[in-house]
Amino acid sequence: MWSEPSPAECFVERRRRLATRLHGPCVLGSGIARVRNFEGNRFAFRAESHFLYFVGRHIEEALLVFDAGTVTLFVEPPDPDDALWHGPEPSLEELAEQLQLDVRPIDEFSVPQGAATLPPGDVESSLWLEEVLGRAVEAGNVAANELDVELARVMVEVRLRHDSAALNQMSQAAAVTARAHRSGMVATRPGRREAQVRAAIEAEMTACGMIPAYNSIVTVHGEVLHHGSSTHLMNAGDLLLVDAGAESAEGWASDVTRTWPVSGKYSGVQAEVYDAVLASQLAAIAMCRPGVRFRDVHRRAAEVLVSGLCEIGLLRGSPSSLLERGAGSVFFPHGIGHLLGLDVHDMEDLGDLAGYAPGRQRSDEPAERYLRLDRDLEPGMVVTIEPGFYRIGHLLGGPPFAAIADAVDGDKLAALSHVRGIRIEDDVLITEDGHHVLSADVPKQRADVEAAIAG
Amino acid sequence: MWSEPSPAECFVERRRRLATRLHGPCVLGSGIARVRNFEGNRFAFRAESHFLYFVGRHIEEALLVFDAGTVTLFVEPPDPDDALWHGPEPSLEELAEQLQLDVRPIDEFSVPQGAATLPPGDVESSLWLEEVLGRAVEAGNVAANELDVELARVMVEVRLRHDSAALNQMSQAAAVTARAHRSGMVATRPGRREAQVRAAIEAEMTACGMIPAYNSIVTVHGEVLHHGSSTHLMNAGDLLLVDAGAESAEGWASDVTRTWPVSGKYSGVQAEVYDAVLASQLAAIAMCRPGVRFRDVHRRAAEVLVSGLCEIGLLRGSPSSLLERGAGSVFFPHGIGHLLGLDVHDMEDLGDLAGYAPGRQRSDEPAERYLRLDRDLEPGMVVTIEPGFYRIGHLLGGPPFAAIADAVDGDKLAALSHVRGIRIEDDVLITEDGHHVLSADVPKQRADVEAAIAG
Repeated sequence: MWSEPSPAECFVERRRRLATRLHGPCVLGSGIARVRNFEGNRFAFRAESHFLYFVGRHIEEALLVFDAGTVTLFVEPPDPDDALWHGPEPSLEELAEQLQLDVRPIDEFSVPQGAATLPPGDVESSLWLEEVLGRAVEAGNVAANELDVELARVMVEVRLRHDSAALNQMSQAAAVTARAHRSGMVATRPGRREAQVRAAIEAEMTACGMIPAYNSIVTVHGEVLHHGSSTHLMNAGDLLLVDAGAESAEGWASDVTRTWPVSGKYSGVQAEVYDAVLASQLAAIAMCRPGVRFRDVHRRAAEVLVSGLCEIGLLRGSPSSLLERGAGSVFFPHGIGHLLGLDVHDMEDLGDLAGYAPGRQRSDEPAERYLRLDRDLEPGMVVTIEPGFYRIGHLLGGPPFAAIADAVDGDKLAALSHVRGIRIEDDVLITEDGHHVLSADVPKQRADVEAAIAG
Repeated sequence: MWSEPSPAECFVERRRRLATRLHGPCVLGSGIARVRNFEGNRFAFRAESHFLYFVGRHIEEALLVFDAGTVTLFVEPPDPDDALWHGPEPSLEELAEQLQLDVRPIDEFSVPQGAATLPPGDVESSLWLEEVLGRAVEAGNVAANELDVELARVMVEVRLRHDSAALNQMSQAAAVTARAHRSGMVATRPGRREAQVRAAIEAEMTACGMIPAYNSIVTVHGEVLHHGSSTHLMNAGDLLLVDAGAESAEGWASDVTRTWPVSGKYSGVQAEVYDAVLASQLAAIAMCRPGVRFRDVHRRAAEVLVSGLCEIGLLRGSPSSLLERGAGSVFFPHGIGHLLGLDVHDMEDLGDLAGYAPGRQRSDEPAERYLRLDRDLEPGMVVTIEPGFYRIGHLLGGPPFAAIADAVDGDKLAALSHVRGIRIEDDVLITEDGHHVLSADVPKQRADVEAAIAG
């Protein structure tokens, strides 16, 4: 499975869309590869998403300049000494032809008067851009410059709804992610390490010319939301939580979570909780259509989850009053999802400018403070839907738990000791009349997951 | 295959060794994880090697302070909010017990008067250290501060010869690398992509709890010394050059190159050149013992290679006069090897302070300007030995080639069109009475490589 690059025309069209919306000139920098342990050993270069969106290639130290209706790409010309180490580069003329774009050597660049930019998150890349532009660029902080905030707002308008080339890339990333999760399921068995499953998952991505869009989470400690390491042995009673998504060569992300039994069969109590989370996820997905406010999707997911926890006997009382008392955030202490695109949290580099509609702000309430998206859904948006149930030790000792402790069945909670964390996450495209699940090929119903583990 | 961490005692001993050599206080920073495409999506954290050497753990934003005979580790105390996302951290007391080291919260840190440090290569990490120390720290440039250069010299003394714990780590990394290369060989066949081989190689590393020590090179264009991408289809006549090494969880590197036939069998002309490179490599390894100057190993490798190229009829004339005329650097345009340790080019962050003995400097000559090491070998050093033969298009058109063109058999050169690049690299420990090849389990003789591909 190997994906083709997007046609040059889609980038021409994206550049046109930005150009017609701009109020003044802007310069988008691609950035600099990150140093690993020394100067000569850097991570593979990944261009800034705002640059990538319009160029489609990871060209280091390049500037894309929009000025008075013209668009120009400034790059370092090919260096013969460098060719020995990194291979021959296309000439500027060849690059111009391939990209259908005016390409110039970077030493011909001069800063357009009043140019806006978007700061890279990486400090070295920001300092480079600062030097190139001759003005302050604060890494990761678009708010530092009003001109840049203005550009950020325009960029959100351009990137929020995905075009067909973007959706094609994201579908391919989701397809590779489906292969990866299936390989992970097949590789799972008691006595192995989490790392062996992670290896199987990431190998599928690599073999298909993709990379992980974020550090894969492959853990029997699913109660830790972003568990970074995969060193544990897997035992027969464990659930394995896998949050792993591929990123296409052009930078488009997928983001999918499944939670499966190491033994190959969910235990009775695991199945009960799994189905409660799944019901919550399916209810949330079912709501996804244009015009629906995302916060309401989040609330609905929490409601269905808490109802499910009542049904299985973990909680007693009316779901709505339990929610008011904070039962949602005790067992599901994060948001229902976020934007997905070139970034796994798309445009999160712009703070909440992309995630929150103008006039809306992030809440301080435990149940919603981690909600990364609160817009009315629009066709072309891709969002993740990812409810979870977690039995988190330190939350069970704290004040939020105390507020609902009398409604919790202690025996049932104890019986859940092997359910540490269950999350189910899909990538959902909002269509004109509803939604389409990009990651639908990843097994999700319990029977399908068990069949996939059996191989 | 899963490696155990080094015993706490080895780090105690390393800290003692540094402490007894210091002329004044010093502060070693661990650094900050590198931003990928936005603040919240960072590459897995890899601590600075100088920190790692004495602590063995990738603890972010930590300071190891040597002052007046005491050693103290300053760290961020565990944060309950962070535990939700990243799991519970050991308390400072637990960490102190595990590391056999005095551990304090970082807000108790105060800069010892006249403290030296070693600048991280990463700018964000350097700015952090600059703020912590209240003085300039220039990313990747130890030469900016004489006090730091002094510390660098001491650090080279401490890290140049590896102790048994380090050798144990490097041996394990080499063992995993051997598994990885074997898996890569088995996964090779015509019609597949380079990426599929790369996937098989890196999956072995991941499954064993390791990571690539550098961006793996897996390419049918071996004539590009550091080819970064692995997108090509592999055809039956191609040679595949694989330069890939695992890094252990504690950061110790391996660095191994093999070049194998996609068809499973070296062609006649591929075999001839392969054996010429192999003869060069074996002759260079045979020289490795205490007291031998590394530049002489490099020269010997070039000599044997050029002799081999004469024997197979590519070059005409006496090897010594061909070498004088630059035949070595036309077909073998890099150094024979480098130091290996926590960094794949060990301590290259210190410029040539580690690689070049006091009083020796890097040459400007084409044949030796890329030589990263020129010391007399000592027991406990680990070096790579990696000669290569490359048929590099633009070098064949340039002045260095012109100088030997009359000695080159044009028909033979044309017949080598499918030999683009062959490199053979091993990791060699210098012992009291000679050497030991850490990577000896990676198939190298042609028959062994062919057998491994056959599976």
